[in-house]
Amino acid sequence: MGTIKDKVAIIGMGCTRFGELWDKSADDLIIDATYEACADAGVDLKDIEAAWLGTVFSGHTAVSLSAPLSWQYKPVTRVENMCATGTEALRAAVYAVASGACDLALAVGVEKLKDTGWVGVQPIDVVGRSTMSTAGTDLPLSPPAMFSLMAQRYFHDYQINTEQGKRLLAKIAVKNHYNGSLNPKAHFQREITMEKVMNSPLVANPLRMLDCCGVSDGAAAAIVTRADSALGFRSDPVYVKAMAASGGPQRDPSKDDYDFTHVEENVRAAGMAYREAGITHPREELSVAEIHDCFTIHELILYEDLGWSPRGRAAEDIEKGAFELKGDLPVNTDGGLKCFGHPLGASGLRMQYEVYKQLQGKAGQRQVRDPRLGLIHNFGGGIWGGVAAICITGNQLEGR
Amino acid sequence: MGTIKDKVAIIGMGCTRFGELWDKSADDLIIDATYEACADAGVDLKDIEAAWLGTVFSGHTAVSLSAPLSWQYKPVTRVENMCATGTEALRAAVYAVASGACDLALAVGVEKLKDTGWVGVQPIDVVGRSTMSTAGTDLPLSPPAMFSLMAQRYFHDYQINTEQGKRLLAKIAVKNHYNGSLNPKAHFQREITMEKVMNSPLVANPLRMLDCCGVSDGAAAAIVTRADSALGFRSDPVYVKAMAASGGPQRDPSKDDYDFTHVEENVRAAGMAYREAGITHPREELSVAEIHDCFTIHELILYEDLGWSPRGRAAEDIEKGAFELKGDLPVNTDGGLKCFGHPLGASGLRMQYEVYKQLQGKAGQRQVRDPRLGLIHNFGGGIWGGVAAICITGNQLEGR
Repeated sequence: MGTIKDKVAIIGMGCTRFGELWDKSADDLIIDATYEACADAGVDLKDIEAAWLGTVFSGHTAVSLSAPLSWQYKPVTRVENMCATGTEALRAAVYAVASGACDLALAVGVEKLKDTGWVGVQPIDVVGRSTMSTAGTDLPLSPPAMFSLMAQRYFHDYQINTEQGKRLLAKIAVKNHYNGSLNPKAHFQREITMEKVMNSPLVANPLRMLDCCGVSDGAAAAIVTRADSALGFRSDPVYVKAMAASGGPQRDPSKDDYDFTHVEENVRAAGMAYREAGITHPREELSVAEIHDCFTIHELILYEDLGWSPRGRAAEDIEKGAFELKGDLPVNTDGGLKCFGHPLGASGLRMQYEVYKQLQGKAGQRQVRDPRLGLIHNFGGGIWGGVAAICITGNQLEGR
Repeated sequence: MGTIKDKVAIIGMGCTRFGELWDKSADDLIIDATYEACADAGVDLKDIEAAWLGTVFSGHTAVSLSAPLSWQYKPVTRVENMCATGTEALRAAVYAVASGACDLALAVGVEKLKDTGWVGVQPIDVVGRSTMSTAGTDLPLSPPAMFSLMAQRYFHDYQINTEQGKRLLAKIAVKNHYNGSLNPKAHFQREITMEKVMNSPLVANPLRMLDCCGVSDGAAAAIVTRADSALGFRSDPVYVKAMAASGGPQRDPSKDDYDFTHVEENVRAAGMAYREAGITHPREELSVAEIHDCFTIHELILYEDLGWSPRGRAAEDIEKGAFELKGDLPVNTDGGLKCFGHPLGASGLRMQYEVYKQLQGKAGQRQVRDPRLGLIHNFGGGIWGGVAAICITGNQLEGR
């Protein structure tokens, strides 16, 4: 792979409140997120040249973006990559600007997930009823069942007993809810206690209801332009350092020699992204990260997959509070999928919204210290074959 | 919009036979098209860095591409833009290479349309039963009904009587079937007569069954690289001169002042593409074109929308045979959607396959004279809000 490092900047972002938004249509959410992004960038919607819509289940196609925006005859394209769809919409817009095809592009992610019947935390084959059903990607396992296997195996291999494991996962849930309690846009805008997590109903052992992310409606949007013209729009643009994606081969985890304690797609995407961004010590160089905590065990495993904790030793970092708001690498400062919610197509752009605000020093009570580089990470699909997508952004152009 | 002119070249293409391929899975079709493209480019599949999959109805997601290709951990993304999906997959791959993100990218379009129950030519709300159904883009009209309104209005406004109109449309069907009869990959690989078209069952007046395109299974693929390294792969690469897309706003044709005799998205996309390619006299400068003849009336209207015939005067060019294989601008030389078939996600890349072969002088019995520039055009959606996508390619870099 080559590089798009420092070719493109984000100059405006928007994000709706996430939640059970029965009174909002997808059109409403698209409008809210996009108008906020335009106002933030100081850009007139009509000056944007092309757009990408990220959505999985809402049944939307590209015209579903141009219609609510009353956009006349501009290029609008839909991209879809399961739960990584939001980050992929951003990647498409970034590549378009870096290619020279246009100077001002929009990426929007949206999902009216509550309308679809998606239940997420229940151990039934929800994706099997989705538009993916004929693709040969039918789930052998529901998402919680899959991640429960990873938790069990991880705890077994690293000799973490049931109580310790339960506590480690609960600490991640409590951290993300604490962060989300500081965030007026989060779906579940409240703190939870260790006890509450550890006593919540069992979904797929050892994962309990409060180990599972929210199933939400919401939208988020980004406006990107050429890095060399970004300062014409605002004094604090955020520069794209790397965009990476890694799609796994289809495998049968019950037959292959898959170890169930890591997700190779995460490792590969991180390697690509760090290389492109020129990052050699991610734990030290990153200031903030938003990662795909669909289940608490995945956030734990990601600490290792993304190269921040040595293999099998995430527990030590969790106990130290390394990834808490005051830790050395704050993770999911906006509440994460866990507390902010997870409307699939919107999540990647919601993550970028937080990193963007953090890099601008505008994250209020959630602000991290001395922000320089931030990472977002999405994972879609599952251990039978998934896709990890990463975007790394910074608030400085290299050499300045 | 900016430009990607002459930044990217197509160095390999593949296309399956189209048809009712009950004995082939989508995996089979992806493999057949991609392997042909790799062999054509002299590229090892493992050296390709990133891929885009274009598919609408097959229920596929990005992993559906990496799995059959046994692709390990590379970026694969799905794009969807209704019937323009194939061209959009190519656009994504072209932008990625032009951006510098990668040097070797793959675009694949596939559809197992016969498996979905899509019937195409029947006057029922087929798209209404699709994944688009909740998008607020529910069809007020089936595709044939919509195009029948256009035909009726066009003939009324330009004072073409019923018999003349029937003959004009039939001539387009006969032309495309003649071209397709020379093409071993076409779904309906046979000639038809004027009488047969004009006596075929009425679907939506004045459109008859043989005015409607085929509903087919199939796949096509393209491999693209940087224009400046293309000659390292082959002596006859095809250079991308322009990629344009125009998404219409959502409208209610029964209320708006829509004229029903043109498709504005086509006009806008063509304007963008000609500007980017530096084409001022498209009729004279283009050597060959593959356009979206989902219904014969759309091909007729496209002659005008794309700027080749003056408004209301396509009939004269049809009567002269201007768009026939020996005419001054041969159109749908491979048989078009009409005879080659229309597996939505594959169609744009199938069109590019023909233009690529024509520009290389490898189109056999269908070869056009002195080929220099070719155009492909896709249209998705409908008069209630659609998307037109265009790619213009040439066999010379400007200035050489």
